[in-house]
Amino acid sequence: MSRIAYVSGAYVPHRQAAVHIEDRGYQFADGVYEVIAVRGGTLLDEEPHLQRLHRSLKELRIPAPMSDTALGIVLREIVRRNNINAGIVYLQVTRGVAPRDHAFPRSATPTLVVTARASRRPDPRQWEGGIGVVTIPDIRWRRCDIKSIALVANVLGKQQAREAGVFEAWQVDGQGWITEGTSTNAWIVTNEATVVTRAADNAILNGVTRLALLDIIAREGCRLDERPFTVEEAKTAREAFLTSTTSDVLPVVRIDGAPVGDGKPGPLSRQLRAAYLAHAASPA
Amino acid sequence: MSRIAYVSGAYVPHRQAAVHIEDRGYQFADGVYEVIAVRGGTLLDEEPHLQRLHRSLKELRIPAPMSDTALGIVLREIVRRNNINAGIVYLQVTRGVAPRDHAFPRSATPTLVVTARASRRPDPRQWEGGIGVVTIPDIRWRRCDIKSIALVANVLGKQQAREAGVFEAWQVDGQGWITEGTSTNAWIVTNEATVVTRAADNAILNGVTRLALLDIIAREGCRLDERPFTVEEAKTAREAFLTSTTSDVLPVVRIDGAPVGDGKPGPLSRQLRAAYLAHAASPA
Repeated sequence: MSRIAYVSGAYVPHRQAAVHIEDRGYQFADGVYEVIAVRGGTLLDEEPHLQRLHRSLKELRIPAPMSDTALGIVLREIVRRNNINAGIVYLQVTRGVAPRDHAFPRSATPTLVVTARASRRPDPRQWEGGIGVVTIPDIRWRRCDIKSIALVANVLGKQQAREAGVFEAWQVDGQGWITEGTSTNAWIVTNEATVVTRAADNAILNGVTRLALLDIIAREGCRLDERPFTVEEAKTAREAFLTSTTSDVLPVVRIDGAPVGDGKPGPLSRQLRAAYLAHAASPA
Repeated sequence: MSRIAYVSGAYVPHRQAAVHIEDRGYQFADGVYEVIAVRGGTLLDEEPHLQRLHRSLKELRIPAPMSDTALGIVLREIVRRNNINAGIVYLQVTRGVAPRDHAFPRSATPTLVVTARASRRPDPRQWEGGIGVVTIPDIRWRRCDIKSIALVANVLGKQQAREAGVFEAWQVDGQGWITEGTSTNAWIVTNEATVVTRAADNAILNGVTRLALLDIIAREGCRLDERPFTVEEAKTAREAFLTSTTSDVLPVVRIDGAPVGDGKPGPLSRQLRAAYLAHAASPA
C-alpha cells in the first residue's frame, strides 16, 4: 500500500505531496507542528496535543487551519488510509504561501500538512539497558515553549549525540541548568527519591508525555520537584530518564560517558515507564 | 511574462514551483539562503554572497548543491528568464528530502531553489526623511552568523516593527547591546563622528552590504569602531542608519519614538548612502 499524505485539502500520494516554495514554513520556519502517537489504531492524548497546537498557533498568531472536529477527522482518515496500528501522526501548520517578506502577509491561508507512519521497530536494549546522553550548550531561541519548526539547532544537537554514539543531547543554558533534550524532556531522580524536572517555562517544550507523566507521578505517590537542575546534579543523581511521544519513558544510564547511579536503569525509572505504558495502552 | 523559478534541476513556472513536504527545509528549517541584488541586470557583489553561502553551508555541514560556476549560470538564467533589470535573486539550499528524523540523513541530495523578482518601488521618503526603528529583546538562537532559514524570531520582530508603524526592529541582547535589525545591520555615528557597528560575531549576520560599507568607510577616511553599542548610546548618537541588500543605506531618525540627533538624516549617513549607491551602480 502506498503512503498517503494530507496537504491543504487533498489526500495525495506521499511521494507527490508538495508545498509551494514560497510557503512561509519553507522560507521563514513560520509554522508549528505536533507528533501524536497512534496506539491500537487510535490517537494517544489527542486533546493535550491539540491544546498545545492551539497555544503554539496563538503565540505565532497563525489562525487555525480548520476546526478541531475537522482536524480530528483528517487525523483519523490519515491513520486509516495508511493503515497505522502503532506509529505516529505528524501534523504541521504554517502561515501559508505569500511573496517573501518577513512581516505577516496581509492575507494568507494557513497550510496544513498531515502524514503518518508505522513505528520504527524499537530496540529493546534502549529500555532494558538504558541509553546515554551528552550535554551540549543550548543555542536555541528563547521561545522553546512554542513547538515551532525552526529546529535547526535541535538538528545540530541530535547530530552531535549521534556522532558521540548516544541517543540524545541534553542542552545546557547559560546558567548551567539543563533545559531539555533536542526532542525529549529531561528528568532525574535524587538520592532522596524525588523526581526532578524543569518547570514548563520559555526554555522547554511542555511535552505531552511530560504532562502525562506528571499525572502518573502524582497518582503513584512519588515526590516531585519541578525545578531546573545542573549537569553536576544530573551526573550524581540516583537515576535519570527522558520522555517523548516516540520514546515513552527511557532510562538514561550515562551522561557524558559517566554512569548514572550504578549505570543501570533505576527502579523508579522502570516503575514510571511501566505506568506510562499502561496509560498509553488504555488512556484514562 | 509569467515568473520562472529554479527548483533542483528544473526551470518551472513560479506558481507551480514546489518542494516535497519532507524537505528538511520545511520540517526542520535545515537550510540557508542568500538574497543578491540585481542592478542593471547584473548580480551585485556576487562573490561575497557566494562566500557567505559556503560559510553557512559549512557550518550546517550541508554539501554545496553544485559548483559556483554552475550556480552562477543558474542565477543569471533566472535573472534573464524573469527579465529582471533592478531587483533581487533569492536562493535557498536545504539538506534535502528525507524521512523525518532530527539527525542528518545518511544520504540526501541538497535542494536548491532560486527565484527572482523586480524591486518593489522604493519610497523616496525612506531616505529623504529617514525611517524609525523600535528596540526589542533579541530572542533568536546563538548562531545568527549562519544565514539560516530558521527566521521565525525575525518574522515576529519585523511584525512588531510594522505594528509600531516603523521600518525595522533593532534587537537587544541580554547585556543590553543592540545586535542588529531583523533583516538589516545596525549602525550609529557618535558625537565625535566615529561610525560604530557591532563586530561580526555569532550574534549578527555579517551583511554583504555591511562589508561593502566597511570598505567604503575606509576609503572615505571615516573613523570606524567595530564594537557593540547600547540602546542608550544609540538614542544619544549624532546619527544612526541601517544597511541591507534591499535597503542599501537608510538613515534611522527615530528610535523608540525619540529623535536621533535633530531627527533628520545626518550628513555622514547621506554621504555613505551616496558612496554605497555609487558602488552598487559600478562595483569596484
